[in-house]
Amino acid sequence: MRNIHMIIEYDGTQFSGWQVQPNVRTVQGEIQKTLKSITGETIVIDGSGRTDAGVHALGQSATFKTDTVIPNDNLFRVLNHHLPEDITLTSLNEVSDDFHARYHAKGKHYQYRIYNAPLRSSLRRHFNWHIKSDIDVDKMLRAIPHLVGEKDFKCFMATGSSAKTTVRNVYEIDVYHEGSFIVIDFKGNGFLYNMVRNMTRLLVDVGTGKEQIENIPDIIASGDRSRIKRTAPACGLYLVEVYYDR
Amino acid sequence: MRNIHMIIEYDGTQFSGWQVQPNVRTVQGEIQKTLKSITGETIVIDGSGRTDAGVHALGQSATFKTDTVIPNDNLFRVLNHHLPEDITLTSLNEVSDDFHARYHAKGKHYQYRIYNAPLRSSLRRHFNWHIKSDIDVDKMLRAIPHLVGEKDFKCFMATGSSAKTTVRNVYEIDVYHEGSFIVIDFKGNGFLYNMVRNMTRLLVDVGTGKEQIENIPDIIASGDRSRIKRTAPACGLYLVEVYYDR
Repeated sequence: MRNIHMIIEYDGTQFSGWQVQPNVRTVQGEIQKTLKSITGETIVIDGSGRTDAGVHALGQSATFKTDTVIPNDNLFRVLNHHLPEDITLTSLNEVSDDFHARYHAKGKHYQYRIYNAPLRSSLRRHFNWHIKSDIDVDKMLRAIPHLVGEKDFKCFMATGSSAKTTVRNVYEIDVYHEGSFIVIDFKGNGFLYNMVRNMTRLLVDVGTGKEQIENIPDIIASGDRSRIKRTAPACGLYLVEVYYDR
Repeated sequence: MRNIHMIIEYDGTQFSGWQVQPNVRTVQGEIQKTLKSITGETIVIDGSGRTDAGVHALGQSATFKTDTVIPNDNLFRVLNHHLPEDITLTSLNEVSDDFHARYHAKGKHYQYRIYNAPLRSSLRRHFNWHIKSDIDVDKMLRAIPHLVGEKDFKCFMATGSSAKTTVRNVYEIDVYHEGSFIVIDFKGNGFLYNMVRNMTRLLVDVGTGKEQIENIPDIIASGDRSRIKRTAPACGLYLVEVYYDR
């Protein structure tokens, strides 16, 4: 069988997340449906990880096995032609047999976008978290050293979820202005469920003065999710890239 | 009665245009419904002009008369609170009795946005016209002198529509790159129905080599809509600002 690797862009607004589930529209489900209609095969694709309802992707990564004889270039074009408009393949390549989008992922880059303005924007509502209050980006930058490195990030994991280990290595966090937007980039070897959105919430609370930088080590040490307020909304989050050693 | 002037941003994607019509969702209809629920009055708002289904606005302008005693600041906040998310008032002011958003409009600024890249983008699909082919912006710039000034622009008016006169004064057209986007700004004393989208189509055809700059004077002189290909899609068009003498 051939092993195919795809990079996928999607607008998460109208999906109940990545993972296939009965009776709801998901990114994985739509791609598998399209693959079936093109190849005739029942194909299960393996994503690098799930994304929640409303979360976007510029570079989600997934692999699948197929017996189809359709050449890669054609498969790429035909898939894009038949996929719904809110999913776009940005690349499709044949890879070695053992390569797996999730098992071989070495890290990820997420981006979180905040629209910081007194009034909401209708044109931007699905693609950013709108925050009215003034945000001090310098304060956010000063909080970053507490959030990077190899640490137990349990306090940022969604309540009720589980992971073999809650230790992750966050390589880099950057915060910057882009006009009226505040953009936060997160790069790490992996992220717990809701970790990026909860880190974003903590950083925003620091930037708006609702949380003190000095408390962060203690919040992390506590491993207590309830020390951070409500998770930042899904619509501001983008999976930008999945890293592999290749 | 008080005379109120509003500036309005909207995402045109889920509207059947500006103008109220039975059984469909329109921007005017939604604002009037919200005004009724807040003031108890049946209010008809006068927009500066219509926009088509899918066309966006950053600065649509509309006036209405009301007997409500709700102060302006409250009316502004309450309206924004109750309007659907795809409509946002960016300002609301009380104006002199005789001021009318349409009759007193002196001109308009429209912007047309093209996403020029080999692959479509799911995240941008509702907000740009995606064009795969290479576009020569320098050629578009050289075509502009033919399209500005006071002229009979009948060739750009949608077939089947009518206007007292088809003469308009286009003050300025500008074309520029913004990353992978090509942006066209149109400023004039007024635009015929579909004029901006048909001018965009002609400019794009010049930029892709499908139309020759030398033919433009003849196309304009002919007054013949069929000399230009299919209208550029609605989703790339934004009403940016309505000008008044004030």
